[in-house]
Amino acid sequence: MSDLKITHARVVDLRFPTSREHIGSDAVNVDPDYSAAYCILETDHGPHGYGLTFTLGRGTELCVEALKYLSRFAVGRTLSSITDDLGEFYRLLTSDSQFRWLGPEKGVIHLATGALINAVWDLYARVQEKPLWKLLADMSAEEIVRAIDFRYITDALTREEALEILRARKACMDTRLKQLQETGYPAYTTSAGWFGYDDEKIVRLASEGLAEGWTHFKLKVGGKPDDDLRRARLLRNTIGCGNKLMMDANQKWDIGEAIERTRQLAEVDPWWMEEPTNPDDILGHARIRREVPKVRIATGEHCHNRVMFKQLMQAEAIDVCQIDSCRLAGVNENLAVILMAAKFDLPVCPHAGGVGLCEYVQHLSAFDFLRVSTTLEDRVTEFVDHLHEHFVDPVKIRNAHYVLPEKPGYSAEIYEDTLHDYSYPDGRFWRNE
Amino acid sequence: MSDLKITHARVVDLRFPTSREHIGSDAVNVDPDYSAAYCILETDHGPHGYGLTFTLGRGTELCVEALKYLSRFAVGRTLSSITDDLGEFYRLLTSDSQFRWLGPEKGVIHLATGALINAVWDLYARVQEKPLWKLLADMSAEEIVRAIDFRYITDALTREEALEILRARKACMDTRLKQLQETGYPAYTTSAGWFGYDDEKIVRLASEGLAEGWTHFKLKVGGKPDDDLRRARLLRNTIGCGNKLMMDANQKWDIGEAIERTRQLAEVDPWWMEEPTNPDDILGHARIRREVPKVRIATGEHCHNRVMFKQLMQAEAIDVCQIDSCRLAGVNENLAVILMAAKFDLPVCPHAGGVGLCEYVQHLSAFDFLRVSTTLEDRVTEFVDHLHEHFVDPVKIRNAHYVLPEKPGYSAEIYEDTLHDYSYPDGRFWRNE
Repeated sequence: MSDLKITHARVVDLRFPTSREHIGSDAVNVDPDYSAAYCILETDHGPHGYGLTFTLGRGTELCVEALKYLSRFAVGRTLSSITDDLGEFYRLLTSDSQFRWLGPEKGVIHLATGALINAVWDLYARVQEKPLWKLLADMSAEEIVRAIDFRYITDALTREEALEILRARKACMDTRLKQLQETGYPAYTTSAGWFGYDDEKIVRLASEGLAEGWTHFKLKVGGKPDDDLRRARLLRNTIGCGNKLMMDANQKWDIGEAIERTRQLAEVDPWWMEEPTNPDDILGHARIRREVPKVRIATGEHCHNRVMFKQLMQAEAIDVCQIDSCRLAGVNENLAVILMAAKFDLPVCPHAGGVGLCEYVQHLSAFDFLRVSTTLEDRVTEFVDHLHEHFVDPVKIRNAHYVLPEKPGYSAEIYEDTLHDYSYPDGRFWRNE
Repeated sequence: MSDLKITHARVVDLRFPTSREHIGSDAVNVDPDYSAAYCILETDHGPHGYGLTFTLGRGTELCVEALKYLSRFAVGRTLSSITDDLGEFYRLLTSDSQFRWLGPEKGVIHLATGALINAVWDLYARVQEKPLWKLLADMSAEEIVRAIDFRYITDALTREEALEILRARKACMDTRLKQLQETGYPAYTTSAGWFGYDDEKIVRLASEGLAEGWTHFKLKVGGKPDDDLRRARLLRNTIGCGNKLMMDANQKWDIGEAIERTRQLAEVDPWWMEEPTNPDDILGHARIRREVPKVRIATGEHCHNRVMFKQLMQAEAIDVCQIDSCRLAGVNENLAVILMAAKFDLPVCPHAGGVGLCEYVQHLSAFDFLRVSTTLEDRVTEFVDHLHEHFVDPVKIRNAHYVLPEKPGYSAEIYEDTLHDYSYPDGRFWRNE
């Protein structure tokens, strides 16, 4: 295929009314309407590129506007002029000297950057006729490293160290690929444990999950101490001691309270405690981890860039690194964090759920296993069973494992009918509200 | 005056074409167009409230949209229903369960929160017929503390500790007030040292500054090592050894480079090195400070919330705490940081310049001196001499000190003519471009 040119960026404000069923509810996010700023990079011939950033409803319009602004850095260019130096493209988007003040590399503008970068990678993978995980897995160490912006992380990971990790760990990739093709990548379910679900529903959904083969279950905590403990015991009793129970406090606690509550909930042997406090509090997470050594500490879905992840690792603040495919600025910055995690010997267990996050992270996890971590030990990727029906190439789960995707691209293409129905505020659904 | 009601929020995208004269240029922000998302809270009777958040041009429209969204939490309410519990108002704005995902408490939505909160304080001060510094200085310890959101900072500063600081340090406020009224609050100038200025201009402006009584001069660094050193020596030679020279690298360096360059520039005895690296890098600042003990480390203008400032203090990462009146979410969050700085015995030297920041921080510095720090030792507030002519109650500088403002409010009201000329994109100036 001759080099195609990006001619236009179509940006859509897409919102699903999930709050009506308490889907996605937790101690802090009580009524999310799962949403996305969604971007279609139209081209002069060949495939288009599809990318998104996940949001919770109100405010999605800000990401949409930011995405429209940033798309000027892609529109009018040939794809190869971008993919020849993907690191330079990242720096271009994050270094706009006026726009940068609104971050830098955080909040609305960084979320939008993630959507655009993901759309470019999707397009790249489609043109190469490979699923994204395979595009990445087939890249040379030099190509992968060139996509990473090492600014501000060289004290933790240098370009040379990243190259060395990638070169040293490529051996036997075929064996790992065969394993992925046969069994898939291990997943855990959050679907049973939402905050808004009553006891009966938790037990019923957990039982159904067990029957489907799930072995790792996550429960939302951060309510009243007695309620949390009752729900945790209930879930533990339902799934038994042979399965894993994770907890997620969604930033509910101050440090002292997080320590106390995590100690208390340790009774049911949680495999990790996720987001025990404010996501910016690196030193706070480190202290919780030191003071409650028997519970592993996880965070990352609100960790806004590689500099924050770097410090979580340097401060020995986490046991589990939960990258987010869109809060970090797309594939490029996720590569940086995956490689830092390898350096610090931490398992990467991506955050997913929402809209399209499962579709995304399955690719990142597969790449991590094939080229970086080389192990599945303590690795498990979040799965939530909502909204997949809107995707042209939805995730497939088999026996609690993500089935390796085969179609070209990064799996974020959404059906036109869905855009027609759920675009906000003019889509069919919202017009009728 | 009977309780007034906020009836409407008028939000303006205001941009000044400052990039054309290299005003505000530094190693990272090469061509800022000083701008603001500006908010007028209209009321049913009595004064209106005026607030802003500072931006650099492109992207201001995002803050404007966020501000329009957030204003729903103020419009339709009586002023007293907000000022009776200003802490609750802060939590209301920062806890919107869907909007929060876009931060939390960072980036576009937090900048917009700052503008709205500042507008409410301005209105409050006008109704009380006091300049903001006096409104704050006259408040009881309990009232001040009630405005603070202690979530996530109780491991560093509890409500009780904050009360104790405020109560213990109120003594002799009249003496300090007299001092402020007589000599003003010490200021330093950044006007001579912009990155885009050539050697001749730096010498000329510094000489003029000396003649005007300035004793503290800031130089932008982060260029080529030889250029930085030459400019620094030039400025040092011009101002002599009896005056202070501060340096600002505007986040240009990685940690290793920051250490090396700061060591090198120590030759000219800088009073502080500001923003040597990425603003999110708490541990990085701590390491630079440890490894270059003879240069004090300053940061804060990009420090996005109280949780980050808390950690900069806990990690012993800074010698100078540079609060920003609008990047932090307005007066409330600045109070939290000013009180934490008192607990950690750090001088607060606010960031200013831009549009309206000088107008704002003079109030915060005066309050800090009167009720919290009680000292002027090592305290100096930034001053940049641009765009003050657009303000109804502009800052006044006398002998390199901020003259205590006397008019009611928070000094951010901008002339209607200015709004007419510089609103974007429809103002007279921009229409003619």
